[in-house]
Amino acid sequence: MEEGDTHSAANTITCKAAVVYGPGQPLVIQDVLVDPPKKMEVRIRILYTSICHTDLGAWLGTNEAQRAYPRILGHEASGVVESVGEGVTELKAGDHAVPIFNGECGSCDYCKSDKTNLCEKYRVNPLKSVMVNDGKCRFRSKEGGKPIFHFLNTSTFSEYTVLDSACVVKIDPTAPLRQMALLSCCIATGVGAVCNTAKVQPGSTVAVFGLGAVGLAVVEGARSRGASKIIGVDVNPDKLTKGQTMGVTHFVNPKELEKPVHEVIREMTGGGVEYSFECAGNLDVVREAFLSTHDGWGLTVVLGVHATPAMLPLHPMELFDGRRIVGSVFGDFKGKSQLPRLAQDCMRGVARLDEFITHQLPFEKINEAFQLLVRGKSLRCLLHLSSPQLN
Amino acid sequence: MEEGDTHSAANTITCKAAVVYGPGQPLVIQDVLVDPPKKMEVRIRILYTSICHTDLGAWLGTNEAQRAYPRILGHEASGVVESVGEGVTELKAGDHAVPIFNGECGSCDYCKSDKTNLCEKYRVNPLKSVMVNDGKCRFRSKEGGKPIFHFLNTSTFSEYTVLDSACVVKIDPTAPLRQMALLSCCIATGVGAVCNTAKVQPGSTVAVFGLGAVGLAVVEGARSRGASKIIGVDVNPDKLTKGQTMGVTHFVNPKELEKPVHEVIREMTGGGVEYSFECAGNLDVVREAFLSTHDGWGLTVVLGVHATPAMLPLHPMELFDGRRIVGSVFGDFKGKSQLPRLAQDCMRGVARLDEFITHQLPFEKINEAFQLLVRGKSLRCLLHLSSPQLN
Repeated sequence: MEEGDTHSAANTITCKAAVVYGPGQPLVIQDVLVDPPKKMEVRIRILYTSICHTDLGAWLGTNEAQRAYPRILGHEASGVVESVGEGVTELKAGDHAVPIFNGECGSCDYCKSDKTNLCEKYRVNPLKSVMVNDGKCRFRSKEGGKPIFHFLNTSTFSEYTVLDSACVVKIDPTAPLRQMALLSCCIATGVGAVCNTAKVQPGSTVAVFGLGAVGLAVVEGARSRGASKIIGVDVNPDKLTKGQTMGVTHFVNPKELEKPVHEVIREMTGGGVEYSFECAGNLDVVREAFLSTHDGWGLTVVLGVHATPAMLPLHPMELFDGRRIVGSVFGDFKGKSQLPRLAQDCMRGVARLDEFITHQLPFEKINEAFQLLVRGKSLRCLLHLSSPQLN
Repeated sequence: MEEGDTHSAANTITCKAAVVYGPGQPLVIQDVLVDPPKKMEVRIRILYTSICHTDLGAWLGTNEAQRAYPRILGHEASGVVESVGEGVTELKAGDHAVPIFNGECGSCDYCKSDKTNLCEKYRVNPLKSVMVNDGKCRFRSKEGGKPIFHFLNTSTFSEYTVLDSACVVKIDPTAPLRQMALLSCCIATGVGAVCNTAKVQPGSTVAVFGLGAVGLAVVEGARSRGASKIIGVDVNPDKLTKGQTMGVTHFVNPKELEKPVHEVIREMTGGGVEYSFECAGNLDVVREAFLSTHDGWGLTVVLGVHATPAMLPLHPMELFDGRRIVGSVFGDFKGKSQLPRLAQDCMRGVARLDEFITHQLPFEKINEAFQLLVRGKSLRCLLHLSSPQLN
């Protein structure tokens, strides 16, 4: 395979990528080589990408088992198909697309089941760092040609990336690509947890623990489903204003309470909410979210990532109070088949994507964007890769 | 209120009961006074009762918080209404009835919801030891008139007992009362966990952990729902034969395995069963049952009682593999409204109640019956209270 700096499908592409070399080390913007897509793979030109807490955890190396360096992180993005490998028929160069970290092959037992969105081969897997096809990397360093590892089926912190076609969703070309980047993680995760996992009913009561981008996407989903009460819970008082903009009807700051937040929520709702969503990735919060629901029918949906060896902080007998708890991955969306519809829903206002883009920066300032997230300043900082305009 | 040895509705009844005076102490058959039923209460003549592990736990005082002595245990039984208190209209003297430890008032928010069978006032509550009406006991000792505590809304180890009408189900008079005793706990719990909680589908695969009476009732339910594979799991090799009689298609004894039982079950079923049922009341078993299900869609139903302060042995990230776990109380039956139908189902063979009655003894030999259960010799030993015939 030859190197080249043209964007030819047959050739390796040289482009800029942000490479991480060790836990918490600043990302290095450098030239990398991106191999052409192999069988059933797709090479995408990334136009927009943003940073989510899963990237943050991988960058900091929170979970040792997931460490693989050098690596190109990133999974929330949008772009245009540059070329496709053998056998790919549903995508072609020029298609607008979003990568999905939780793929859908369409033919395995899981994809054929209506009970799960976990594909056998392409489900979310933070431990995976190479392509499924051949166990190799499509990224190499320009100097020396050493492999650079993939991340979460996507690796979007690069001007070009190679994905399995199962992890690429074709999007309506009239949908604004800039906004569509958010579709690929936080919006799908939050809105889907409400609409697919919990199936929140009109008039019901909801509590959302953690008002980051995923939590606010839950709020958007709950609002669009007609929830009568949406209680936002966050220890950061700055979240109040944004939360209210998005549809939070009541705001609770656990730091300002003299009793456990679940007791306060039960008082506010005549015994507890019908649905609670844990978007903080904190085990104490899981327990509060669980106990905040009404006994008999309360459902807690866990969305946060918990990189901990600790057990679920629930007593077995508590299962008998009729409260349920489930996890939700990628909002229970089957990405390839159901995300195009979500894109349309967002275009007609189900989730107001622009509200999530609090910052925008050129790709080169990715370290600055990480810091905005670390310091809780941004919901999403959208990085612009190939376009000089910031609009 | 006067004492009396006649069975008059207006009078206190003197009758035999088995009273427990301390953890693990032999039950004492003695005369007790049973007050007439007050408003919305019912006094029942118990004809048959059996012993379940919940009685065993209460007898042994496994959970200190539940200790209240002297107490009359027992909750699996059948009998005839002797008299009813003010306001009771749906029951009258002479009706065939089974007591239910998980009552249904029919008018609270819980009873009106189709999502739960936990009544606000009359749900199962092992801590409750007095009547709801006045916080007092309807049992008193014949010598001294000291109160004797109630148990689990029922207290069926007595020739007569007083229950809230919410905890009494009228049964078709043509249904054999002898068998109907089992309806009131193990059959409803097991069959209901399959049909109501899990909604097991025809052709699906099932694993049942613990082949006691509840586990075998799960087997009966799974068989009646057309499960294609029913894997029975028990460390007691004697359970094999009975299990097969009831419909177990495969038997696994964890003690005879060199690897964890969930690995074996996954191998037997191409990745795991669709439904697993934990009927052993053991946390290690909960984990094995959970991991024995197929990722993506497996459902574990916990039926066993876990009198332990330990947490649920599940990692929070394991929720994201698409396995779910829920508790099931009284098979998610709303007792008063749905048990009459279950009785009819059993009469036409959905569950073969006679298979569960492995032993029969006169009431006076209740301590012997406890020992049969402690030693794992009986499924159910039916105690006959008022009838000299054992048939």
